[in-house]
Amino acid sequence: MASTSQPRSPLAKLATELRKELSSVHALIREHAKSDHVARIQQITDHLLGSGGKRIRPILTLATARLFDHSGVNHLHLAAAVEFIHTATLLHDDVVDQSTQRRGRPTANLLWDNKSSVLVGDFFFARSFQLMVRTDSIRAMDVLADASATISEAEVIQLAATHRVDVDEETYYRIIGGKTASLFSAATKVGALVAGGSEAELNAAGRFGNALGISFQIRDDILDYGGSEILGKNVGDDFRDRKMTLPIIRAFSQGSREEREFWTRVIAQGDQRNGDLEHALGILNRRGILDSIQTDARKWSKTAQNELHNLPGHPIRELLAELSEFAVSRNS
Amino acid sequence: MASTSQPRSPLAKLATELRKELSSVHALIREHAKSDHVARIQQITDHLLGSGGKRIRPILTLATARLFDHSGVNHLHLAAAVEFIHTATLLHDDVVDQSTQRRGRPTANLLWDNKSSVLVGDFFFARSFQLMVRTDSIRAMDVLADASATISEAEVIQLAATHRVDVDEETYYRIIGGKTASLFSAATKVGALVAGGSEAELNAAGRFGNALGISFQIRDDILDYGGSEILGKNVGDDFRDRKMTLPIIRAFSQGSREEREFWTRVIAQGDQRNGDLEHALGILNRRGILDSIQTDARKWSKTAQNELHNLPGHPIRELLAELSEFAVSRNS
Repeated sequence: MASTSQPRSPLAKLATELRKELSSVHALIREHAKSDHVARIQQITDHLLGSGGKRIRPILTLATARLFDHSGVNHLHLAAAVEFIHTATLLHDDVVDQSTQRRGRPTANLLWDNKSSVLVGDFFFARSFQLMVRTDSIRAMDVLADASATISEAEVIQLAATHRVDVDEETYYRIIGGKTASLFSAATKVGALVAGGSEAELNAAGRFGNALGISFQIRDDILDYGGSEILGKNVGDDFRDRKMTLPIIRAFSQGSREEREFWTRVIAQGDQRNGDLEHALGILNRRGILDSIQTDARKWSKTAQNELHNLPGHPIRELLAELSEFAVSRNS
Repeated sequence: MASTSQPRSPLAKLATELRKELSSVHALIREHAKSDHVARIQQITDHLLGSGGKRIRPILTLATARLFDHSGVNHLHLAAAVEFIHTATLLHDDVVDQSTQRRGRPTANLLWDNKSSVLVGDFFFARSFQLMVRTDSIRAMDVLADASATISEAEVIQLAATHRVDVDEETYYRIIGGKTASLFSAATKVGALVAGGSEAELNAAGRFGNALGISFQIRDDILDYGGSEILGKNVGDDFRDRKMTLPIIRAFSQGSREEREFWTRVIAQGDQRNGDLEHALGILNRRGILDSIQTDARKWSKTAQNELHNLPGHPIRELLAELSEFAVSRNS
């Protein structure tokens, strides 16, 4: 993630602090992603494991367990299970979105086919389930089963909202709450759970993960339109993909009749012409949309940081607070 | 299933014996298939629940638990969970196979789209997981998690074997063992498990389910080429879909050079002409392929019946023996 010449991100610092456990989790993931008989599973697994994801969800599980100085192994299995759920979701997501790139590399559905992505996603989901069973914790399974159902419900809501410019913010929050925040929340909650946190602590851990997930997602949406910074390299991807993210939703709901016609043409109808992205950025800028959304993201980040006060004081807790700040201040 | 004028199938008799519990399972399925916020899930659910599947897997769980005169409610949750896993698999299967019909009705992927089928399949899989958690039985979850992983591995093996005429019988058995028999086996095993069967009994229940599943599947393969009976209405579906089922696998492996060229053309290359199905049936008949396969199916049915002797004597056990016989003697 970070080079030696720039300040290291809180995620990189957490990864360093938790490196021993993270390496056990990687080993568990490699071991369970294996399929001796099925070459295709192995190919897709190697492709995905080689793609260097940030592993933020397993890091959250390990970090939350560490707050309680947990010394068992159950959090390792749960961290791996969380990452398998996430990976299964990505595989199915890329099929549904017909994506061709993820993390700068071709997606599995492009390299192989949609069928393999569907089935290997199912395999990974089953693997997550096997890993959870090994923890012997019905409550952790309960949390992750609920998160899995919430994720897929949110995916269906998102599918129904595709290219619909009149989606409201409540629906947006339901989608990102389900797709992103629910697994962040489950990851932190099960960390506190297996580490023996009190009922109040594990609920606080869950609310921390939820708020962190929302702030990460909103900042992602902003960055795709460049934020208030110099335009990044990938500005406009969501625009070109006609994704109903928060900037568009808010701009449409506040828009003049003319602006609404513009959003309808470029997003709903997908009729995009030269200069449309610049025009869109102009509207967002004129109306202060990105700034108002950034204010919301900061509120969620603040909520996350406040919840941390309900968890044990620990150097790792400071890094989690830094992570919450980083979630809404990062530029990539 | 059965009209009043013909002898009722053992499955219909089991459904009658278990009607009260089965009706609770149906209620559980309806309740958990619901999604208040997501109309698309509700539409697909209504379509699937209205399609009148045989519900053989939940019946097996209920029947096995009944052998031990189980009176709790955990077997109801597990029976519903097993049916959800099965339904999720069907939804994803139809996407992978690009099927347009199931049980004589249009498939969900045809009525809506592949995306909805993928996501609602995920939702059902998550629901199965939530139902299992409610049983508080880590061991039952272990059995069903393993079955889920085995099913998806087998699906990937099958995908890799698509249209490959040189698939061997070992691969065939790995595919049907994973796709069909593993969930039959898990269904019977968890029934014995929650009902308090001994270790020996639950293993016997699992082997019974496995052998029953294999005999059902082989008989399905035979029926698609008409068996030794008058040709059924749907004879040739597998042939037209170029499926590598046991009749083709055995016919190819025993075939003359000329016959192998024929199978390669119609199955591997998909170049099917008028009269090809009749020619295929002629080869199968001349070589006695269907009879030899039927002999294998009978062996599996016999294995299933033998395993029943390791389970408690009970009127339901007689119906399960009848079901094992029916699996390989039915004509539809």
